[in-house]
Amino acid sequence: MDAETSSTVRNVLFIMADQLRWDYLSCNGHPHLETPNIDALAARGVNFSKAFVQGPVCGASRMSTYTGRYVSSHGSFWNFVPLSIGVKTLGDHVRPHGVRCAVVGKTHVEADVEGAARVGLDISEGPGLLAMEGGFEPFARDDGTWPPGFKVQGNQYCDWLRSLGYESDNPWHDYANSARGANGEILSGWHLRWAEHPAAIREEHSETPYTTDRAIDFMREAGDQPWVLHLSYIKPHWPYVAPAPYNDMYNKEQIVPPVRSAAELQDQHPVLRGFRSYLPSQSFSRDEVREKVVPVYMGLIKQLDDQLGKLFAYLRESGRDQDTLIVFTSDHGDYLGDHWLGEKELFHDTAVHVPMLVVDPREQADATRGTVVDALVEAIDLAPTFLDALGLPAAPQWLEGRSLMPWLHGKPPGQWRQYVVSENSYAFRDDVRLPLNRPVDGCQMTMLRTEDWKYVHYEGLPPQLFDLRQDPQELEDLGRSDGHAAVREQLQGLLFDWFRNRKRLTTMAPQDIEAWNARELEVGINIGLW
Amino acid sequence: MDAETSSTVRNVLFIMADQLRWDYLSCNGHPHLETPNIDALAARGVNFSKAFVQGPVCGASRMSTYTGRYVSSHGSFWNFVPLSIGVKTLGDHVRPHGVRCAVVGKTHVEADVEGAARVGLDISEGPGLLAMEGGFEPFARDDGTWPPGFKVQGNQYCDWLRSLGYESDNPWHDYANSARGANGEILSGWHLRWAEHPAAIREEHSETPYTTDRAIDFMREAGDQPWVLHLSYIKPHWPYVAPAPYNDMYNKEQIVPPVRSAAELQDQHPVLRGFRSYLPSQSFSRDEVREKVVPVYMGLIKQLDDQLGKLFAYLRESGRDQDTLIVFTSDHGDYLGDHWLGEKELFHDTAVHVPMLVVDPREQADATRGTVVDALVEAIDLAPTFLDALGLPAAPQWLEGRSLMPWLHGKPPGQWRQYVVSENSYAFRDDVRLPLNRPVDGCQMTMLRTEDWKYVHYEGLPPQLFDLRQDPQELEDLGRSDGHAAVREQLQGLLFDWFRNRKRLTTMAPQDIEAWNARELEVGINIGLW
Repeated sequence: MDAETSSTVRNVLFIMADQLRWDYLSCNGHPHLETPNIDALAARGVNFSKAFVQGPVCGASRMSTYTGRYVSSHGSFWNFVPLSIGVKTLGDHVRPHGVRCAVVGKTHVEADVEGAARVGLDISEGPGLLAMEGGFEPFARDDGTWPPGFKVQGNQYCDWLRSLGYESDNPWHDYANSARGANGEILSGWHLRWAEHPAAIREEHSETPYTTDRAIDFMREAGDQPWVLHLSYIKPHWPYVAPAPYNDMYNKEQIVPPVRSAAELQDQHPVLRGFRSYLPSQSFSRDEVREKVVPVYMGLIKQLDDQLGKLFAYLRESGRDQDTLIVFTSDHGDYLGDHWLGEKELFHDTAVHVPMLVVDPREQADATRGTVVDALVEAIDLAPTFLDALGLPAAPQWLEGRSLMPWLHGKPPGQWRQYVVSENSYAFRDDVRLPLNRPVDGCQMTMLRTEDWKYVHYEGLPPQLFDLRQDPQELEDLGRSDGHAAVREQLQGLLFDWFRNRKRLTTMAPQDIEAWNARELEVGINIGLW
Repeated sequence: MDAETSSTVRNVLFIMADQLRWDYLSCNGHPHLETPNIDALAARGVNFSKAFVQGPVCGASRMSTYTGRYVSSHGSFWNFVPLSIGVKTLGDHVRPHGVRCAVVGKTHVEADVEGAARVGLDISEGPGLLAMEGGFEPFARDDGTWPPGFKVQGNQYCDWLRSLGYESDNPWHDYANSARGANGEILSGWHLRWAEHPAAIREEHSETPYTTDRAIDFMREAGDQPWVLHLSYIKPHWPYVAPAPYNDMYNKEQIVPPVRSAAELQDQHPVLRGFRSYLPSQSFSRDEVREKVVPVYMGLIKQLDDQLGKLFAYLRESGRDQDTLIVFTSDHGDYLGDHWLGEKELFHDTAVHVPMLVVDPREQADATRGTVVDALVEAIDLAPTFLDALGLPAAPQWLEGRSLMPWLHGKPPGQWRQYVVSENSYAFRDDVRLPLNRPVDGCQMTMLRTEDWKYVHYEGLPPQLFDLRQDPQELEDLGRSDGHAAVREQLQGLLFDWFRNRKRLTTMAPQDIEAWNARELEVGINIGLW
């Protein structure tokens, strides 16, 4: 190369929003919600328009993203299921190469305390502590979400709020996620009816600005040491409460109507029937709820966008925008009443399709800036992408995703995946499980989605099938349609292939296997010689 | 109960031979090899006549037996593949309850040193050391099998041989597993042609008596503390060399003819063609080799039986026979020329069908003594059986096998498994892999065997199918037979079920999942409340 102007990627800023739908960004087509700072990432990088998470709940999805492995392969099937000490994380991949790997915000990693005790691991410090944190140095970890009345101790954010005068056992709940009534009473954010009221906190003290400021603190502190920073916002995840002015920025005229049909409630799949009887689905199926809550959900996203504007300004001022790969994504969507459902947990695109914007500052990526790539992408592709950008080895026995760098550099791979997979279990949802009389280890749900079809396998129950070409809104379930048996069989065959080919042999590298035979003969072990 | 005469199982003596075929015991029908001491176990206990290992090589098979998990579930796919620190072992199940779990002899456990380093685990002592030993206290661990010329250091058996005057860098090879020529030259046991010559060692100094004596040492030392002792003989595994008189106890008239047909060499499955070109198959396909080696293989088994006689006499004398569950099994078979194959690695019953004799000393088992149970049993059933016998909890999220105790107590379960599964990979066999141009992660082989059929799935290659009713010797491969497409599809469906239902969620107990919902509501997290 004649010019050494091309910069190097030394850092990765890995931004995740929680429960942010794919379509609630202006760059992804929302008609009323303007997100110019996030859109700027799409303009400066590549917008992967068909990106899917590997699980439609926080914990399972995040463990996949943090390990580069499908849910079946890391075993942390749902929220609060410990991440086994036997699983290698993103931090484990980068740290030996002198790259810090830290988190500001939420990870939802549950420590495998039992596994650690089994092998006698010291988890109070060093690598043992990191293993309990999913491989992230807990620079300012904060998973939020405490019940009312819970005495929050040892939490940086709550301690900071108290230092500012927000006196409470649980200032997260009582101030940041609640409003005040006419008589000063707490209107809990756990109750959707209070959503439109402003949080009882100054905007700059609410969670999203706090999280942003801590990220800037990290980057300032890090200096010249390379890093991967997982900047992980809890919002727009519930409680759906926003500080002024974001609580009142949008109105019911600006919300998009729910995607649902009366026909969906006829002859329902038994698991969907269960989830529809679950409280969030009941609530979000009511227009009154949507009209109060969705504008606040939009306000929380708007606040996030404004904060990202502040963050990106810092990156430009510090020059970090020139040597930092930036990713913006989400851990899953939010039904918000689509398909007569609330929350997430199932496999409509509403829940599993996420935004994924990637900015590579290097000139090799100039040609693709502002483009949209519609290849099927999975959240497990991020870890290999980070390693590729940093020039670090990506152990193939661990990583089940693929680097997106060829797409960013305008050199699409000749072969790319034909389907994405997402997994969940309703074992933890008594509302769903008990009426179906299923054992907790018989509640697995597995989605396989091609460009044209979506197939969802349920253990012991009929499958679901959607024709995404004819029915992109996924309103007609063809899982029991007589005319689609051949399609279902074909997709089931792909799922069988997928299950068989998971990377279960992780403790030996492929190159070591390849070298095995030569070594065995070399040392003189020559079985069967006459 | 009016009588407290029934004893309690306080100990488990878990005896394993290496590479011992199912049919090389007189209790299992060998016409010329008398094994009265092993037969006595069958007379005093239950002979499970259809027991199968989960992998047809030492390492994978043993890791399944030691963890109670299928090979796909523990990830240690072949020999020398480390057992992940994330996997719970038999020792981990019993030790917290005050039960010692030790090994005398071979385990083939490969330490997950990389995994330990990743989390900063101290592997020099305590639980960290045990994790590197597959959960077994290494009372007298000895995996044997060193190449000629290798300087063996820190091995108890080799040190002991040297103390007796067997001077050598590698007395295991030079004395215990080699003979002497006319001029005193070493005739290496690695060469099959010397098999019939006596090992250059006194019989009482050879491996099998040494191993037996160490087991007796352990039981003496253990005193009243309950224990699980894995007494794990390396023989009759190669090198096929026996000390006098066992080298000369059987002759070529007493060997059973090989199970093979000329038709097997027509239109061969490509993987079998590869294994048949591998040296042990070439050698054992020759009558000259079989006639020299098989009598010695029989002699090694006879020596083992004699040593077990000594061991069982000790048990009776010490009273341990009254409170000890005794299991005798093997880690896989040995083709010995059957199907034009040597060694193991594939899925004919010759390789995956093993002896399994279980003696429960308690009176509840009196009714089944001397009986044969022909239910489909897997090696992964042993760990749950041991826990059941000891009255210890068997964590269902870890254990994929089932306790055999109901069979022993004459109360056969109403529902039992309809098939057994065994797995292997030819990734480590260049002779097989390279001609097929398969990547190392595309060499998985998975066998599913019902009472009537055996189906073997090969990634990217045709399957194999055997009709066990019509063709119990497995001579006719119906894997590509036009008339058997429906059977293959049905068996493939069972295999799909099996893959989906592996126990991959190990870090949370089912009862904790069941309790989840109640706990969530109890603490006040009530999502979706209006």
